[in-house]
Amino acid sequence: MSDAAGATPQRGFEAAEFAARLARAQALMAAEGIAGLLLMTEAEVRYFSGFHTLFWQSPTRPWFLFVPAEGKPIAVIPEIGAALMRQTWVEDIRTWSAPAPQDDGISLLQDLLSSYAAQGAQIGVMKGHETALRMPLGDYERLIASLPGLRLCDATSLVRSLRMVKSEAEIAKLSHICAIGSRSFAAVPDIAHEGQPLEDLFRAFRREALAQGADDVPYLVGGADQGGYHDVISPPSRRPLRAGDVVMLDTGATWDGYFCDFDRNFAIGSADDLSRRAYDTLWRATEAGIDAARPGATCRGVFDAMRAVIADMDDQGGDVGRLGHGLGTQLTEWPSFAGFDETVLEAGMVLTLEPSLGYGAGRIMVHEENIVLRADGAHLLTERAAPELPVI
Amino acid sequence: MSDAAGATPQRGFEAAEFAARLARAQALMAAEGIAGLLLMTEAEVRYFSGFHTLFWQSPTRPWFLFVPAEGKPIAVIPEIGAALMRQTWVEDIRTWSAPAPQDDGISLLQDLLSSYAAQGAQIGVMKGHETALRMPLGDYERLIASLPGLRLCDATSLVRSLRMVKSEAEIAKLSHICAIGSRSFAAVPDIAHEGQPLEDLFRAFRREALAQGADDVPYLVGGADQGGYHDVISPPSRRPLRAGDVVMLDTGATWDGYFCDFDRNFAIGSADDLSRRAYDTLWRATEAGIDAARPGATCRGVFDAMRAVIADMDDQGGDVGRLGHGLGTQLTEWPSFAGFDETVLEAGMVLTLEPSLGYGAGRIMVHEENIVLRADGAHLLTERAAPELPVI
Repeated sequence: MSDAAGATPQRGFEAAEFAARLARAQALMAAEGIAGLLLMTEAEVRYFSGFHTLFWQSPTRPWFLFVPAEGKPIAVIPEIGAALMRQTWVEDIRTWSAPAPQDDGISLLQDLLSSYAAQGAQIGVMKGHETALRMPLGDYERLIASLPGLRLCDATSLVRSLRMVKSEAEIAKLSHICAIGSRSFAAVPDIAHEGQPLEDLFRAFRREALAQGADDVPYLVGGADQGGYHDVISPPSRRPLRAGDVVMLDTGATWDGYFCDFDRNFAIGSADDLSRRAYDTLWRATEAGIDAARPGATCRGVFDAMRAVIADMDDQGGDVGRLGHGLGTQLTEWPSFAGFDETVLEAGMVLTLEPSLGYGAGRIMVHEENIVLRADGAHLLTERAAPELPVI
Repeated sequence: MSDAAGATPQRGFEAAEFAARLARAQALMAAEGIAGLLLMTEAEVRYFSGFHTLFWQSPTRPWFLFVPAEGKPIAVIPEIGAALMRQTWVEDIRTWSAPAPQDDGISLLQDLLSSYAAQGAQIGVMKGHETALRMPLGDYERLIASLPGLRLCDATSLVRSLRMVKSEAEIAKLSHICAIGSRSFAAVPDIAHEGQPLEDLFRAFRREALAQGADDVPYLVGGADQGGYHDVISPPSRRPLRAGDVVMLDTGATWDGYFCDFDRNFAIGSADDLSRRAYDTLWRATEAGIDAARPGATCRGVFDAMRAVIADMDDQGGDVGRLGHGLGTQLTEWPSFAGFDETVLEAGMVLTLEPSLGYGAGRIMVHEENIVLRADGAHLLTERAAPELPVI
């Protein structure tokens, strides 16, 4: 099944989308006795506010969004972001002239949180798996020490449960960028050729994805070598493509801040038997993943279904740690298709199936597709990879 | 003065570059009584190891590099990165099958750090301005609690003092990407036109920068509006360029992981008098910055020199908090051209001069150039902006 890509979606979201996210968060906060969420990471601030900017790439300034148990989110941000934040549905915007190393938002946060501390209230922060603290650790320690009585809890599972299930508006954006990615990969036989330095192929692929409508191609990795590549996270080298190479490109392209994340493999000139067999194994493992991924199944169950096929050739899966993951405003999101992840799949989740295997002498191969879960099972957002290793 | 861009530099660095960085770090560590640095952020891990990958965009896995007081750095990383790390000068590479939410490198770090804890040694972590904790806060707290006796200190100023001064090999990379950026901006009059949605101009600019040799254009923001723009960090809208607009593009393009970061302003059809005056003021403020930025001067001194010119039109500088910053493997690095920053400038620093001002009804204008400091003063890495607002 494939969700046909329609017209270009609208950028941004209606305020109703944010109101619905907030209502779901506040219901969970009430159930858990959480008086507020203090968020500071790009994906979380954007999820509850709609604040969308590449400026997060500058590490200089922290940004904060406080989600109270009642009422709308409160932004505590550098003045440079005020004009953009005023375009969102957030009304209470408190700013300071940043950077200010002696007080980068700390006194504003103290003003906001002191009444919570006086009440001994519980505030959620992101402390769990796949999170980071996007403010100076020293400032965080100083802030917390200045608010005796404040109880902190880990809000990771709460936020994770919301963000994992995408709205139809989000799915439309993800479907759109996946279609752009598919058209870009379809052009690879036209833009790749023997003798071309891998670096130049990467550059040509990026230009192609932009021409196809991507806003950006923040993530592009891959490899190429005789009879298979050895590494799946490297930047490109100047090594020219040679007959007998297997080349892999893995891209995270974006549209309106939503990612696709999938890869394609190609053989240059001709394909060796072992690589053809690895490709076939992974293609079938992906099929098994597509069949297994449906509401009610667990991530571990989908992982086991893919691994059972991969075991035909390799029992380690290349040791990349998992065989797929969530997808959204981040290149990789919760959950993981891994033995440790008992997350029950739900309709509306957007996920990657990413089986991999090690073969030959230190070679690795990866396959990847993007899917959305509906009540009746997995629908492909990507154009399915060819069933046999394509030869350029 | 302009540093002419020569041939394309080599990718990566010789081992001697890393040996020199390590020796400087260890000299400072000895002076400060620090037994090791526990690093986990992309720029720091890369600085001491050479480990370079876009995979950092996935938030799933933490990465650690330990720099001991004696001997080479030790990598504690997910197995998926082992093949790439083995290509660096790092020899001691300890891996685990990540992600592993119950133990994402923690027991490996405990093994590494327990002898330091037993001795009551002091370990540096990045806790200061412009830093973040790139591992789950819960894991960090658990790790530290498991190592009683370990003394932690803030290594920000130590690492900052090293990274702020670039080697000749780094300057060559920065010069190369600045030249690529300059050629890309020179093409804007050919790729921008009235009626073009800003989003399409952004896409065309990205394609142009790639064609000019950029590896990527991770950062591209800007604005366009009648008689001036209102915001300098927004993603592009679908609004078409109109006669009377002032349009600004601000780009962080990369080559081998090194950034340029500068912007250019253009008027569409014709330029209004107030925008022409703002442009002239900022052009002269940049000149004042170029003159003031020399070894021995302070960041505050350069800030004051630019602000004195900006005060002709505006006494707030648009309240973006500073008027330039360091540049390297991050889009923005220490130091800041700001009133709070008493950093003494040194030869080898690569910096942006970025004066801005508010004018008219809520309009803002920014200018930016990139420079390297030599013994005799500032040398431009970017092709100097036209002295009058260019009209397309």
